[in-house]
Amino acid sequence: MHVNILLFEGLTQLDMTGPYEVLAAAPGFSVDFVAKSPDPVRSDRGLCFVPTQTLASAPPCDLLVVPGGPGTDDAILDPDWVAFTRRQALGARYVFGICTGSLLLGAAGLLRGKRASSHWRARELLAHFGAVPTDARLCVDGNVFTAGGVTSGIDMALKVVATLCGDEVAKLIQLQIEYDPEPPFPGGTPRTSEPDIVRQYLAQSQARFELRSAKVRQAALNAPGGPAAADSAA
Amino acid sequence: MHVNILLFEGLTQLDMTGPYEVLAAAPGFSVDFVAKSPDPVRSDRGLCFVPTQTLASAPPCDLLVVPGGPGTDDAILDPDWVAFTRRQALGARYVFGICTGSLLLGAAGLLRGKRASSHWRARELLAHFGAVPTDARLCVDGNVFTAGGVTSGIDMALKVVATLCGDEVAKLIQLQIEYDPEPPFPGGTPRTSEPDIVRQYLAQSQARFELRSAKVRQAALNAPGGPAAADSAA
Repeated sequence: MHVNILLFEGLTQLDMTGPYEVLAAAPGFSVDFVAKSPDPVRSDRGLCFVPTQTLASAPPCDLLVVPGGPGTDDAILDPDWVAFTRRQALGARYVFGICTGSLLLGAAGLLRGKRASSHWRARELLAHFGAVPTDARLCVDGNVFTAGGVTSGIDMALKVVATLCGDEVAKLIQLQIEYDPEPPFPGGTPRTSEPDIVRQYLAQSQARFELRSAKVRQAALNAPGGPAAADSAA
Repeated sequence: MHVNILLFEGLTQLDMTGPYEVLAAAPGFSVDFVAKSPDPVRSDRGLCFVPTQTLASAPPCDLLVVPGGPGTDDAILDPDWVAFTRRQALGARYVFGICTGSLLLGAAGLLRGKRASSHWRARELLAHFGAVPTDARLCVDGNVFTAGGVTSGIDMALKVVATLCGDEVAKLIQLQIEYDPEPPFPGGTPRTSEPDIVRQYLAQSQARFELRSAKVRQAALNAPGGPAAADSAA
């Protein structure tokens, strides 16, 4: 079982390091990190990762993993990333988008008519790519796994491993990574966080949301198959 | 608030990438990744990280973060890592060990008489360093935060941020990383996982446990202040 994880500049690193820890622990799984060049890739908060493959050298994969983050907003408008994502996904058995990684899957024309999730703040934007946004933290539609924001990738990776290797393997990995979470506060979604916290986050993320919305609309025009009805109507 | 995160060969990357995502999101926090040399550091499953400082160049820090993983077993016997950890920790306002990272804190003589946690499979070994092992996922004793295995670092990082910046900042970050976990199975600790899963994990981790035990005993002999009573008696 070969896994390719996309590494684009400005990704949110926990989107992929969480699932990676789980997937790499599954027996028989090998993992490559694919970037545009062999140079280290900088995540949104600064930590740099060394890729193992480039767009040109990456082997086909059984499972394609697409993280999100601010860098998604550029990747969805980058013909190289969009074409690579589409080509790899069409050849893979499974596709796994975390956080706003699902926007790149959408820009590659892979979510038309499919239910999909994303970071809660960006979820509605999936409609521009013809997807059916869902509020679920974990969404499975056919061979496409999409998770909500950042940490939801850990939950989903365990679900992916359970699907591919059986529940027992996933449960063993869960025990190994001591995943019996105890968040110090209730919250973590707009439904469970305190209203004042949600209001603050909405305000501080508004500029990013507007920038992202504009780029998503633009990416939707270029998406294989053309813009979705939502965009044509807009 | 400056944070130094230790990067030694063979670390379990999610031990530090989880907390890093949380800490780096806190206002006014800067983060360095400290390795023995400027070369990329390989984590236990292969992903390589680019350090930003070396043992020689690292600035003092307010918060020292020590991840765990198989590489801990070598780090606790490495005089450079032990001395660096001790020196940095003694100059820091807070110390944060994740998973078996607490063994390195122990080897540096920083846990004598203190309650501390670690990965559940290694917790008892803390006694060799004069610590009082606790089964808690999150343990705070004075200025020393220690978390259980791997993913518990995310919970603890939110607690650290709440302590240093107030609850509101931690709650905002929790919403940003959409941390309202939904593990697909109950489990994740020896108390909550199914007995057969626990038995399997104990069996498959036995060799590592024995190797680690031997190295911990050896490291305890070298620890500043000499071996703890538990070792003298053994």
